[in-house]
Amino acid sequence: MNHLVPLDNLVAALSRLPGIGRRTAERMAMALVQDRKGLMRILANALLEADESIATCERCGSITLASKNPCELCVQPRKDAQMLCVVESPGDIMKIEESGGFQGRYHALMGRLSPMHGVGAADLRVDKLLRRIADENIQEVVIALGTDVESDATSSYLKEVLSTRSVKVSRIAFGLPAGSAIEYSDSATLSRAIKGRQEID
Amino acid sequence: MNHLVPLDNLVAALSRLPGIGRRTAERMAMALVQDRKGLMRILANALLEADESIATCERCGSITLASKNPCELCVQPRKDAQMLCVVESPGDIMKIEESGGFQGRYHALMGRLSPMHGVGAADLRVDKLLRRIADENIQEVVIALGTDVESDATSSYLKEVLSTRSVKVSRIAFGLPAGSAIEYSDSATLSRAIKGRQEID
Repeated sequence: MNHLVPLDNLVAALSRLPGIGRRTAERMAMALVQDRKGLMRILANALLEADESIATCERCGSITLASKNPCELCVQPRKDAQMLCVVESPGDIMKIEESGGFQGRYHALMGRLSPMHGVGAADLRVDKLLRRIADENIQEVVIALGTDVESDATSSYLKEVLSTRSVKVSRIAFGLPAGSAIEYSDSATLSRAIKGRQEID
Repeated sequence: MNHLVPLDNLVAALSRLPGIGRRTAERMAMALVQDRKGLMRILANALLEADESIATCERCGSITLASKNPCELCVQPRKDAQMLCVVESPGDIMKIEESGGFQGRYHALMGRLSPMHGVGAADLRVDKLLRRIADENIQEVVIALGTDVESDATSSYLKEVLSTRSVKVSRIAFGLPAGSAIEYSDSATLSRAIKGRQEID
């Protein structure tokens, strides 16, 4: 049977989704082309709508509507607006927010130090972090990174950079299971970890 | 954090893909909205292209280009053009074709008898099958269904319907592992099963 180029293209695009291998992408593509409820068009429209209407908050890096930038987390009144929680990615902000364990502002670095993967300090949003600390009169920076080596290195780096500022620097408690990441933690674990944060000395 | 409707819609659409649960859909959606290589648009375009250009062959039920209908499998010369392989779905046609174990024509029923799920004989493409047997002077119908109860029932039903026609009816050998389906079989198993088919008596 000759290969159908549009089907091959669909399999290739689906294969680029996280955790989706070739075989799974093929099954998905076959299910999609056989679907009689218009799922291909529904999914395509959801993607186009998200592509057009979702943006990254220019201030904290969170996911927001393009029409609300800075995002609601940045502009709404917050109980602890002078606390700034530094995370790796926008997804981490959503996870911590869901946990209800933090009432301050957020700042996503969009990565962590990783010489192995060519990610250096200049690739993270540290300049912006320093500017926010001054502009927003931040009293405490809470580092909410995972427990792996790269997160430790990023945390140490931030502590060093922030040592010249009059700001308290803490890191969420190691209530996280070893080897895990913010993304995979449940709300209770995250809440406990945020409550048990320890000042870096 | 207020929920973002476009993000929720994307998660909902992704959740409808086979084998994708809510949690996986959420991770996919977050990866998509954070992707910087335009994956959302690439995937949306692949879906729209497939939706527009891929059709079901009006003759055999296979997946084909809308511009090639009947499909190439139906119109190209085939060594055993008077053999007709009856399968459940278009995906099964692709699997058998990949195995190289069959050189005839195909016919997808688009389902199998399943009173539990409200699928009766009228829902399958049996009328079309009977017409093709006459029109294409088919000498042998090879039933390539799985080993489960519903496939057995469908096979018995087809044998009965075809008993009034001067056509040999066979079923692929039970080389398939018990409980498996065409979709999950490897090419070698499928080839052996097709070679070892047994006439129904």
